[in-house]
Amino acid sequence: MPALDLTATSVDLTRTICDMPSVSDDETALADAIFDAISALPHLEVYRDGDTIVARTNLGRAQRVAIAGHIDTVPINANVPTRDVAIDGEPFLWGRGTVDMKAGVAVQLKLAHDLTDPRVDITWMWYDHEEVDADLNGLTRLARTRPDLFEADFAILGEPSNGEVEGGCNGNLRALVRTSGVRAHSARAWIGENAIHKAAPILDRLAIYVPRRVMVDGLEYREGMNAVRVSGGVAGNVIPDLCEIEVNYRFAPSRHAAEAEAHVRELFEGFEVEVVDIAVGARPGLDAPLAQEFVAAVGGTAKPKYGWTDVARFSAMGVPAVNYGPGDPHLAHHDEERVPLTQIDAVERGLRAWLT
Amino acid sequence: MPALDLTATSVDLTRTICDMPSVSDDETALADAIFDAISALPHLEVYRDGDTIVARTNLGRAQRVAIAGHIDTVPINANVPTRDVAIDGEPFLWGRGTVDMKAGVAVQLKLAHDLTDPRVDITWMWYDHEEVDADLNGLTRLARTRPDLFEADFAILGEPSNGEVEGGCNGNLRALVRTSGVRAHSARAWIGENAIHKAAPILDRLAIYVPRRVMVDGLEYREGMNAVRVSGGVAGNVIPDLCEIEVNYRFAPSRHAAEAEAHVRELFEGFEVEVVDIAVGARPGLDAPLAQEFVAAVGGTAKPKYGWTDVARFSAMGVPAVNYGPGDPHLAHHDEERVPLTQIDAVERGLRAWLT
Repeated sequence: MPALDLTATSVDLTRTICDMPSVSDDETALADAIFDAISALPHLEVYRDGDTIVARTNLGRAQRVAIAGHIDTVPINANVPTRDVAIDGEPFLWGRGTVDMKAGVAVQLKLAHDLTDPRVDITWMWYDHEEVDADLNGLTRLARTRPDLFEADFAILGEPSNGEVEGGCNGNLRALVRTSGVRAHSARAWIGENAIHKAAPILDRLAIYVPRRVMVDGLEYREGMNAVRVSGGVAGNVIPDLCEIEVNYRFAPSRHAAEAEAHVRELFEGFEVEVVDIAVGARPGLDAPLAQEFVAAVGGTAKPKYGWTDVARFSAMGVPAVNYGPGDPHLAHHDEERVPLTQIDAVERGLRAWLT
Repeated sequence: MPALDLTATSVDLTRTICDMPSVSDDETALADAIFDAISALPHLEVYRDGDTIVARTNLGRAQRVAIAGHIDTVPINANVPTRDVAIDGEPFLWGRGTVDMKAGVAVQLKLAHDLTDPRVDITWMWYDHEEVDADLNGLTRLARTRPDLFEADFAILGEPSNGEVEGGCNGNLRALVRTSGVRAHSARAWIGENAIHKAAPILDRLAIYVPRRVMVDGLEYREGMNAVRVSGGVAGNVIPDLCEIEVNYRFAPSRHAAEAEAHVRELFEGFEVEVVDIAVGARPGLDAPLAQEFVAAVGGTAKPKYGWTDVARFSAMGVPAVNYGPGDPHLAHHDEERVPLTQIDAVERGLRAWLT
């Protein structure tokens, strides 16, 4: 594996690390390369835990900013190695990880190298297993073993946000809503009770549900309540005795876990509801002075982040956090994942200007 | 494999052939045993096609009756070998095939042996692959190669009917009703279109559907319209773009295939409907003189058969046909499948009395 050259441009670094596959659970080669390159920099104190690497400046600044990015990707689908493509004359780097989120990581690596004397102390964090179960996430592990490394006044996640500041994130709840019935031969249906037919009101309630739009700290969050899976049926000649609908509720960061769960249970009153997963969102935290400074420095207007990201982890630890990275989040995980080169440069310029 | 002893009682024959497993596609050993035993009888002309065996008397009688039974069963589920059990003091033979339909076959084998001089000519038919795709059914094959063997004035299928005459059968239609939408990340649901939500009216229409009760030739047939399967969903964080509901319509034998299909298409108007399978029912045919004689001879009142059986095959060939066999059809395919011994004897007596 070639050593990473951190004197290269962010665009070239993006290309290099995208061409080093690091699908979740297979990040070690890339983590090794990052560790080797970063360990060579005398202005950083480096800590490694598995495939998570933390590098800190210790300049005694009054404030500290955490800047983090995950190094894993979702599985490759014939979209590695990367290619340079042009769309309507605009140059893009195409391939797995270009958007989610190796362009962001490349900018961070470049700045970790260049910023030997930033105006705030910086904690750089590159971590593994973000695209899989939260239990496996490198930050989950680190928060357990070294919570002190999360201490900061402000955090920036390099998740794709089209180079704009996206504050906080919605919460995420998954629930199973079930009906039950009685099996019977479908030639004598009146002997049984059809669990799929009994699910009609569940779909009715979902179909007419109007998701809230909620203002939180000046940003409008759009909620969502959706069936993401339905299943039921035993055989072609059997009245089904079970129907299960998996519901995904995305809720504004002003809503607590208990409130979100109560809302779902109320919506599906009369049915069996099992909440299988719940992760609260993160308030945008844009009232923090560092956050306001940051938004002013990089320009544009802060927007809400809808998808759940690790900003919620910082938020839960009392650290205001935003997403700021190159790439269109709609193209994350997409087979045609691609990032405009100009956004990589712009995010590098934005962070550099604010940090120096 | 022991030779079948056709001088044994019908109950003992039932026990013997149930203990010779013959799950669909694995009927050869039982077919061999039947073929050997029946070929030894000089009063019968025997024809074999694969695991289907036809044995005919050729006495020059004015009328001919076909008497048929399938020799395969649905898969065994730890319910072979058979056991003698008593329920409320009544003796039963318990195990796979006792109801569907080896007790009926045993009675037929016994009578094929005993009735050397019946008052009508008899065509005995034992066939394979009834419990699987109609394409594989031994009678389907035989109807193609030897339609002449189906010539008869009346037919009796030994399917379980609690020892009562069940006339005709309902038709059977399977259709797929689909909705489509647009995939999107569930954190930004408003960009997509939820195909599962769009299926709500399909379930609503099924839930309020009132099946018809239709008089056909003096018997009341109950129809049924049921979802037997529902599926949809891509992943826990994706708005689904497809939902599919499999609907099973059981329709009275007075309804033609085109009418049944039109009814389903009308019910689900506005949705994509694909009819994947349709088998028309069989009118009870109880106005045929031989049928009336038969019902009078075995006693009781004829009832409608709800499940589709091979009577429809005879009916389609212009041969009036009824079901008449030992065992409760509700226990067919059941893990606790069991037949009362008295019903085996009663059906043997009923057929013997009428045929001699």
